[in-house]
Amino acid sequence: MQTDFQKYHTTLKKLADVEHAMAVLSWDKEVNAPGGGAELRAQQIATLSGIAHDIFTNAAFGDLLQQLNESELSDFERRNIVRTLHDYQRAQSFSQDFVIRRSRAVSAAYDAWLKAREANDYQVFREALANLIEIKREEASLVGYDDHPYDALLDEYEPSMRVAQLDVLFSDVRRQLVDFVRELRQRPQVADNFLRQHFAKDDQWNFGLHLLENMGYRFENGRQDISPHPFTTSFGASDVRVTTRIDEKNFGSMTWSCIHEGGHALYEQGLPVEYYGLPAGKYLSLGIHESQSRLWENNVGRSLPYWEAHYSNLQTRFPKQLGAIDVKMFYKGINRISPSLIRVESDELHYHFHILIRYEIEKALLEGKVEAAELEDYWNSKYKEYLDVDVPDAKQGILQDIHWSYGSLGYFPTYSLGSFYAAQFFQQAQKDIPELRQQIQQGDNSALLAWLREKVHRHGQLHSADDLCTQITGEPLNFRYFMDYAREKYQGIYGR
Amino acid sequence: MQTDFQKYHTTLKKLADVEHAMAVLSWDKEVNAPGGGAELRAQQIATLSGIAHDIFTNAAFGDLLQQLNESELSDFERRNIVRTLHDYQRAQSFSQDFVIRRSRAVSAAYDAWLKAREANDYQVFREALANLIEIKREEASLVGYDDHPYDALLDEYEPSMRVAQLDVLFSDVRRQLVDFVRELRQRPQVADNFLRQHFAKDDQWNFGLHLLENMGYRFENGRQDISPHPFTTSFGASDVRVTTRIDEKNFGSMTWSCIHEGGHALYEQGLPVEYYGLPAGKYLSLGIHESQSRLWENNVGRSLPYWEAHYSNLQTRFPKQLGAIDVKMFYKGINRISPSLIRVESDELHYHFHILIRYEIEKALLEGKVEAAELEDYWNSKYKEYLDVDVPDAKQGILQDIHWSYGSLGYFPTYSLGSFYAAQFFQQAQKDIPELRQQIQQGDNSALLAWLREKVHRHGQLHSADDLCTQITGEPLNFRYFMDYAREKYQGIYGR
Repeated sequence: MQTDFQKYHTTLKKLADVEHAMAVLSWDKEVNAPGGGAELRAQQIATLSGIAHDIFTNAAFGDLLQQLNESELSDFERRNIVRTLHDYQRAQSFSQDFVIRRSRAVSAAYDAWLKAREANDYQVFREALANLIEIKREEASLVGYDDHPYDALLDEYEPSMRVAQLDVLFSDVRRQLVDFVRELRQRPQVADNFLRQHFAKDDQWNFGLHLLENMGYRFENGRQDISPHPFTTSFGASDVRVTTRIDEKNFGSMTWSCIHEGGHALYEQGLPVEYYGLPAGKYLSLGIHESQSRLWENNVGRSLPYWEAHYSNLQTRFPKQLGAIDVKMFYKGINRISPSLIRVESDELHYHFHILIRYEIEKALLEGKVEAAELEDYWNSKYKEYLDVDVPDAKQGILQDIHWSYGSLGYFPTYSLGSFYAAQFFQQAQKDIPELRQQIQQGDNSALLAWLREKVHRHGQLHSADDLCTQITGEPLNFRYFMDYAREKYQGIYGR
Repeated sequence: MQTDFQKYHTTLKKLADVEHAMAVLSWDKEVNAPGGGAELRAQQIATLSGIAHDIFTNAAFGDLLQQLNESELSDFERRNIVRTLHDYQRAQSFSQDFVIRRSRAVSAAYDAWLKAREANDYQVFREALANLIEIKREEASLVGYDDHPYDALLDEYEPSMRVAQLDVLFSDVRRQLVDFVRELRQRPQVADNFLRQHFAKDDQWNFGLHLLENMGYRFENGRQDISPHPFTTSFGASDVRVTTRIDEKNFGSMTWSCIHEGGHALYEQGLPVEYYGLPAGKYLSLGIHESQSRLWENNVGRSLPYWEAHYSNLQTRFPKQLGAIDVKMFYKGINRISPSLIRVESDELHYHFHILIRYEIEKALLEGKVEAAELEDYWNSKYKEYLDVDVPDAKQGILQDIHWSYGSLGYFPTYSLGSFYAAQFFQQAQKDIPELRQQIQQGDNSALLAWLREKVHRHGQLHSADDLCTQITGEPLNFRYFMDYAREKYQGIYGR
């Protein structure tokens, strides 16, 4: 006979199987599928999504959860049940009618966004976006919140994160980072034009595979492919795949996306397989996921020791392009900062200006302080204010991201949270592993990976992000670590 | 409001979505998946399979079917309902206990078969096979039959096919084909050693793509990949994929597998998308499916006119290997007949000896006339009798095929049925399209494809195989057409 907890786990395993099947269908759609199959594939994914929803919101499963919640449980069992109940209650807050209306609003917004990009005209997107914002306001009120409707949306991506905490963080970004970057921009600029020579596709591909392998990514439990937008997807810890893109005229495009996705993938490969389906077997939050990708991409992958390990290998692969560039010049070039219009092409400091702007806009939209109609001007004025750039058109401005067209409000802040957690974690890793710098310099990332496995990966969702952070570093998320990292690194590059 | 028939179609669409999702997961497993993910993937496919089974055998769906069956229906609706009821009743004949026991017996047999192949020892497989045969006998009695337990198994792959009809066909094979091939083997042999030079992988791959495109395979609704065993899979008519394998030392390995799978794929791409999920939107039977692959592979793809169209192209790709071989020598070489131990490496005539042997064995097993214990000797004696070859070991003998280890008894005959239908269909196509030979000679397959679309593909399961065959050719399946084809072709090659 199964115990109630085992029954609960059995249902969650079935749910995980269906969700991972959806992930396979989506991966295949991005990586392999012929264009003619797109419509039918979307229908098949929607059907699986409906089946997953039915499995999870089934009343008998709800009763089982309630029963377990009122039973005597081990600490491990309790933590799982609490998290599942939280997700269950969120799922239960929406009527079928609402789910259908939301799904329609998302479809309409996505179609309108595609058309608006095609026409390079925000007005084509405006009305569908306005409708979607209305739906997101309704969603927030259905989920419920104490202080701010945005809290209800954030919770989907970053459980227990609140506007009150983000306001503090982003006011730090405004006060400290924006000023610091303005200062840096007064200094003489570093050269990075050597990154935009011709780098042959196959050689880049092979170098990317080498870096992934060196990070500790297990190819027997994954693979890399090409897709227009790099991403990581998991079908369970035993099959975690990454994709990359290759631009022959821009060495950086592949290299750091490869390391970034590798960081995500190491997290997924490090989740405990024995808890497959349980909260204990799942990634904690988008912010913590992003902390893993950013730590590898920036704190490790844009550091001098890392390239002291890998640069001669890289020079051997591209002797003509990089033979005359020494590792210090390379290191400076790959860390050049310069304001840009496009978030995903941004350097690691300006990046948070992009997020700050989106955070301010999303909050204002939910508060009704700005309406979809005036959003393009609002966007453009913020870019002028924070980045001192003039937005030439909608494609390079308000239409650049897919997120809003998907109804993903509350998602953007997790990107910044990721970098901030990464800085705080990495600072602690350096304390805990005294030889870390030397190891990275020698191309040995094993101690760092073991540390991440031990401190982050193996815990799944057993702690809140705040608790995990305190457990690892002695305090909750603190923006200071990111500023310390930024100051030390960029004053080294640009001078004090 | 949906009509009952629309409700029924909605359920079948959902079922098709889940089944196609399973197909994507299986395709990915064969083509892409890293070894470490295999176990979890099998679990995910099993979960989807359980969900599909639940959707189909749901009691409310059964009631809906009964209700529809008792209603006034259009002819189109009636044909769909009758076929679904037939499949529903088959699915209902198994208790959950039986399904679990069967699934265990299959797993055990598959594992044992893998180990037996590894050890090249039939004894390792024997017991698990004996158990599986017992289960298949039970399955036959649960499904029910009028004359022979084998009828109940055949019905899964070739609905309405019966032992009575197969006995006639295979006695014709024994009396006519076996004798004819014995005669041919008295004639001087043709040369085919030029096929086993070195043919570079990429050049073969590109030639294969060219042939597929020329057949009319739509790459916007499919793709080709490499896998150890070539196969075709459909995720709906808008995404039908083929795989091939490439042996650099054997030109034929890829070429005719490519044309063969292309024939299967054209059938799937030609099924009516508007009937997605309905019997009217599905392939009729395995025998009819195989008729499409065999017609392209053999009646077209091993014919002289076909190579008159493509041979100079091929010579341009492989000038060193084929420059000195003229198209007639090539045509003769690719049609060389020679008895072989391995079914999948057989020429198109000896092929049916392999199937004949399996048919006789399967029937004898179900009748209890032979037991698993004596099966290897029985197999070897049949090979001596029909093919005059000595089987040197189990791997080249009784362990060569995966089918029995999967519990697929009754499947093999559909391969021969495919060739026989193909001959009968192709003969009719030649009558209906007077210019067919010239068109093929000019590399134009469009009229043939249009004919197949019109006569076979668009009908889905709306007719029985016998009815379809009569509709197309004026009579049910008749072995005479295959013998006529074989005599005309091979007397041309080997002389009278």
